[in-house]
Amino acid sequence: MAAGAWLGLDVGGTKILGVVLDDGGGVVAEGKVATPVGEAAILDAAAGLARDLETVTGPVSGAGIGTAGLVDRGGVVRVSPNLPGVSYEPFADGLAGRLGVAVAADNDATCAAWGEFRLGAAKGTGDAVVLTLGTGIGGGLITNGSLVRGASGFAGEPGHMVVDPNGPPCPCGRRGCWERYGSGSGLGRLAREAAHAGLAGRVVELAGGDAEDVRGEHVTAAAAEGDEQALAVMERFGWWIALGVANLVNLLDPEVVVLGGGLAAAGELVLAPTRAAFADLVMAVDHRPPVAIVGTVLGPRAGAVGAALIARDRAAGGPAAA
Amino acid sequence: MAAGAWLGLDVGGTKILGVVLDDGGGVVAEGKVATPVGEAAILDAAAGLARDLETVTGPVSGAGIGTAGLVDRGGVVRVSPNLPGVSYEPFADGLAGRLGVAVAADNDATCAAWGEFRLGAAKGTGDAVVLTLGTGIGGGLITNGSLVRGASGFAGEPGHMVVDPNGPPCPCGRRGCWERYGSGSGLGRLAREAAHAGLAGRVVELAGGDAEDVRGEHVTAAAAEGDEQALAVMERFGWWIALGVANLVNLLDPEVVVLGGGLAAAGELVLAPTRAAFADLVMAVDHRPPVAIVGTVLGPRAGAVGAALIARDRAAGGPAAA
Repeated sequence: MAAGAWLGLDVGGTKILGVVLDDGGGVVAEGKVATPVGEAAILDAAAGLARDLETVTGPVSGAGIGTAGLVDRGGVVRVSPNLPGVSYEPFADGLAGRLGVAVAADNDATCAAWGEFRLGAAKGTGDAVVLTLGTGIGGGLITNGSLVRGASGFAGEPGHMVVDPNGPPCPCGRRGCWERYGSGSGLGRLAREAAHAGLAGRVVELAGGDAEDVRGEHVTAAAAEGDEQALAVMERFGWWIALGVANLVNLLDPEVVVLGGGLAAAGELVLAPTRAAFADLVMAVDHRPPVAIVGTVLGPRAGAVGAALIARDRAAGGPAAA
Repeated sequence: MAAGAWLGLDVGGTKILGVVLDDGGGVVAEGKVATPVGEAAILDAAAGLARDLETVTGPVSGAGIGTAGLVDRGGVVRVSPNLPGVSYEPFADGLAGRLGVAVAADNDATCAAWGEFRLGAAKGTGDAVVLTLGTGIGGGLITNGSLVRGASGFAGEPGHMVVDPNGPPCPCGRRGCWERYGSGSGLGRLAREAAHAGLAGRVVELAGGDAEDVRGEHVTAAAAEGDEQALAVMERFGWWIALGVANLVNLLDPEVVVLGGGLAAAGELVLAPTRAAFADLVMAVDHRPPVAIVGTVLGPRAGAVGAALIARDRAAGGPAAA
């Protein structure tokens, strides 16, 4: 076939990020638009962004689109926390109709996982777990070189793994979901607890003086300055991330666990305490090879790049096509 | 090829169960021997059992052997809770040398999962989770029609998924592993708690009068009689099983979850409260197809039958060969 161009779109709550990749996965165009409200408006905006990018790259050969939530194997977004009101919307078919090319729709973290596996931090492995630590925790799983999609396409929701039935309530209706601890929201909560105990002076200062205003970013900022109290919160935070990572490693035995999402920007401030706690939490650590816990390579583009790669690999009949 | 006969062995803490299957998976011979102590003795006993079975079936074409614990992709048992002192023992090669046929060695619950997938309760599905609820909780995972083995072959240890960091200590060194709750041991513990609170009269009676002697089997026996207090313990037990099942469904999105192992003998006494609690614990229950939670079809033979089927399918170059 002629050289292809592959569109990838990542639909978030505030913006739609788009990239166009060449056949080798190089980013040849990139852009973003604000996420409008309403199903048709979102797809119209996505199609408009695609056309803008095509003015740079020429017509794309296929497209992938990712968003948070449950996206079924038919490319229908059944429910998405990022897109209130979007319910049972046929994203794949709707965008295909607008663009005139085949479209693959998938969960955003599933897309990110495929991106990291093909071109990023999990490249060259056969079994990988990719986590996106943001407001919540998303996930994508690779086993034996293939994406785990599950029966309906809903596989990869580790954020709602209950790790403490007596823990804080989750918007999902349960208590103690992992993302109440191991996400940006979780970091903020751990820091507010420390602040109320008088153990987060600099963090509260960065938040403007009120403990209730403390969010995850204030902790990572203070920790980056070397503030001991903030580092202690990060240590506790890393323990919670490691707890869920160990559960996943016990279950899936990956070679690598990639930590992406917004919190990945904090780099070693997150990775180091997670690695330190992991060794005590995984089963039979002395009898298994080391599991690499690493940061994202693709960064904030992971979802969009992965969506484009799913489209490319699906067109080629590759392993992501399953 | 000529009609084959396939040996499957399941090495438990007290006995080795052996079956021989024909090419269609029918059991044509079955036997057992006590599990001796020591690595060479175990393999000698397994080989002796194999030779006894071969006097009925003629020579087998290949063999599979399963045991609890971490069995690597090279067929080496790195560590097994059932076989104290067995450490880094090359089960596959050791048995192959004794039998003169190719041998596949795997985790026992992984074998059981393949058995249920090929010929049992998960037959005809593409994505399944098979759990063995006994003293602990074992597991085997099928995604997209293939066994999930993981990088080293250690995938499928859901029993050590931490579901309550403040929970009871586990022999593995952590606290609140799922198998502290959702296994036979967990049922016994829940029942002893009820007994100490004066809420398990008949259960304690069946245990001989001392609350400390209560085990899981006394609860299921009393529940089978219709004892309300025992049924209340089973309801709480089902909630804990469902908690872990929901975590696994959120992660893997199977069509079916099979509950096998010793507790499966209690049938609906375990299944019904698990199903009832599951609907409240899984994410987005209204947006996903129902997940079947069913009992084992292969029963106590699942591990041995599955081991034989792995050997058969590996010889045929089938999906289990991965």
